[in-house]
Amino acid sequence: MAFETKATIASFGGKLHKLTHQSTETTTPMAVNLYLPPQALTPNPTTKVPLLIYLSGLTCTPENCSEKGFFQHRASQLGLAILYPDTSPRGLNLPNETASWDFGAGAGFYIDATQPPWSTGYRMESYITQELPRALFADPTYGPLLDAARVSITGHSMGGHGALTLYLKNPGLYKSVSAFAPIANPSRCPWGEKAFEGYLGSDREGWKRHDATELVRGWKGGDLKALVDVGTGDGFYKQGQLLPENLEAAAREAGVEGLTVRYQEDYDHSYYFMASFSDDHVNHAAKHLGLL
Amino acid sequence: MAFETKATIASFGGKLHKLTHQSTETTTPMAVNLYLPPQALTPNPTTKVPLLIYLSGLTCTPENCSEKGFFQHRASQLGLAILYPDTSPRGLNLPNETASWDFGAGAGFYIDATQPPWSTGYRMESYITQELPRALFADPTYGPLLDAARVSITGHSMGGHGALTLYLKNPGLYKSVSAFAPIANPSRCPWGEKAFEGYLGSDREGWKRHDATELVRGWKGGDLKALVDVGTGDGFYKQGQLLPENLEAAAREAGVEGLTVRYQEDYDHSYYFMASFSDDHVNHAAKHLGLL
Repeated sequence: MAFETKATIASFGGKLHKLTHQSTETTTPMAVNLYLPPQALTPNPTTKVPLLIYLSGLTCTPENCSEKGFFQHRASQLGLAILYPDTSPRGLNLPNETASWDFGAGAGFYIDATQPPWSTGYRMESYITQELPRALFADPTYGPLLDAARVSITGHSMGGHGALTLYLKNPGLYKSVSAFAPIANPSRCPWGEKAFEGYLGSDREGWKRHDATELVRGWKGGDLKALVDVGTGDGFYKQGQLLPENLEAAAREAGVEGLTVRYQEDYDHSYYFMASFSDDHVNHAAKHLGLL
Repeated sequence: MAFETKATIASFGGKLHKLTHQSTETTTPMAVNLYLPPQALTPNPTTKVPLLIYLSGLTCTPENCSEKGFFQHRASQLGLAILYPDTSPRGLNLPNETASWDFGAGAGFYIDATQPPWSTGYRMESYITQELPRALFADPTYGPLLDAARVSITGHSMGGHGALTLYLKNPGLYKSVSAFAPIANPSRCPWGEKAFEGYLGSDREGWKRHDATELVRGWKGGDLKALVDVGTGDGFYKQGQLLPENLEAAAREAGVEGLTVRYQEDYDHSYYFMASFSDDHVNHAAKHLGLL
C-alpha cells in the first residue's frame, strides 16, 4: 500500500520522512521513518542512493534511533538513505500483547510467528524482508530515489539479532550486515527463549533457523562482511542475553571469515553507545554499497 | 556543595557524568550533566580542558541535549568538556509551579526572580553564572580536569536567550557565545512577556536588563564572537517568539560587530535541528577557547 507522509523534518542536510502504511503481513498500519540524504534531494538526482535498514531493539519505535542514533550524521555525508521500521504490529489487541516489555508489542523479534494468536500479524520477518522494501521501492515518491539493488542491514539488540538472522537467511539480499549489542544466540538466553517459545512453540530444533549462531554454521556466502560492536559495560551482555562469543566461536569452527566483533570498553546498552559508533557502522555499509 | 555522581556513561570516547548537588541559590538539589572528553580521562592529563556550558530550552532537563544534541561528537574530537545544567529549580512546590510548560518548573529563564513567591529559588542567573561554576571548579574530582579560565556558553530557545544575555551581561566571563533558535527579544514576544511579568513584575523598563536585543545596544566588549542559527521552518520563529531580526538590527544600529545569524532552510525547533549544526557550534566555541 502507498505510504502516507505524516511529517518531514530537516536533518543533517537531508530530510527525515515519518511515514505510515497499511501492512498485509501485520494486518495493521505500520509506522516507518525514512531518512533521505541531501544527495537524493537535489532537483534532479541523477544517481539513486543505496539504503541501510536499521532494526530497533525491544520496546523501540522508529523514533528512538532517528533521534538518538545519529546515523544521519555520516549517512548525509556519504549519500546513504536509512530506513527505520517499527519493532512489531501495533494495536492488534491480542491477549497479553502489551503485558511484557520483552514479548508482544515492541518485541516482534523479526520472525514469522507460527503459534496462535501471534501467527496472525506477528510476521515481522516477511514484513521486513519482503513487504516493506517492495512497497518502498514501488512508491511513486520515494521509490525512484532509492537503489533497490544496493541495500544493507544493521540493528541494535533484538534488532541486531534481526539484522544478523535476516542477512544469514537471505544470502545476496543485503550487501553487508552490522549489529550493536545483538542477541547473538537467542536459543540460549532468557529473552530469546521467551520469544521463541511464545512465537514458535517449544520445538527447540526449529528455533535454530532463527538463531544467528546456528545460522552462521551453514553460511556458504563467502566473506561475511559483518561488523558487531558490544559494550563491556552493557548490563545485558553481563547477564548473558547477548552471547557474542558464541557467534564468534561458531563462525570460527565453521571456517566463516569476515566477522569482526569489537568489545568496546565501558560502553553500555544505550543509544549513547550506538551514537558513539554509528559513523563506523555507516562506513561499513557504505564500503559494501559502493560509496567508499 | 560537593557533587554526587549518579551515573557515568561512556560516550564518544569520553564519559558523561550525571551529577546532583545541593544549590543554595535554588534551595533545592540540582541535576547537572558533565561530559568529559577523552583528553580529560587519560591517567595523567597534563592539560586542563576548556568548558562549554549548554543552556536548555523550555521543559528540558539535562538529559534531552545529552541524548539528542550530538555535542559530544565534536567535543570529543577537540577536547572540550560540556556542562548541561537544568532549566529551573525542581520540587519547590510553589503555587502553580507546574501548571504551565512555559513558566515555573522547567522555565526558569536564567534570571533571578524579584517577585514572590518566585524570588525564593528561581535564581537561575546567579546559579549558572556563579554558584554552579564555582562548585564545579572547586570539586575535588572534576575541578582539576577543567580550565576555569576558558569557558564559553551556548543554548537553545529559552537557553539561547540565557546564553546571549548572560554573555552580554558579563563581559569576559565567557570567551564566546552561540545560540540555536534563541528567544532573542523576550520583552516583545509572548513567552518572554509571560516570564518577565511573572518573575520580574510589570515594570517593562526593568525587563531590558534581561533582553539580548536591548543588551547588545550597550555592548562595549568589541567583537561579539556570537553565532546564532535559526530554522526557517521553526513554528515558534514564524509565531514571532524568537525575533532574531531584532537582535541583528540592534547590533547593526549600535555598530556591534561579530554577530553571525544564519537562517537554515526548512529546519524546525527540535533537536534534529540542533544535532545538524552542533558540530559548527562546538567549532565556534573551540576557536575562541584556543582549541582550533
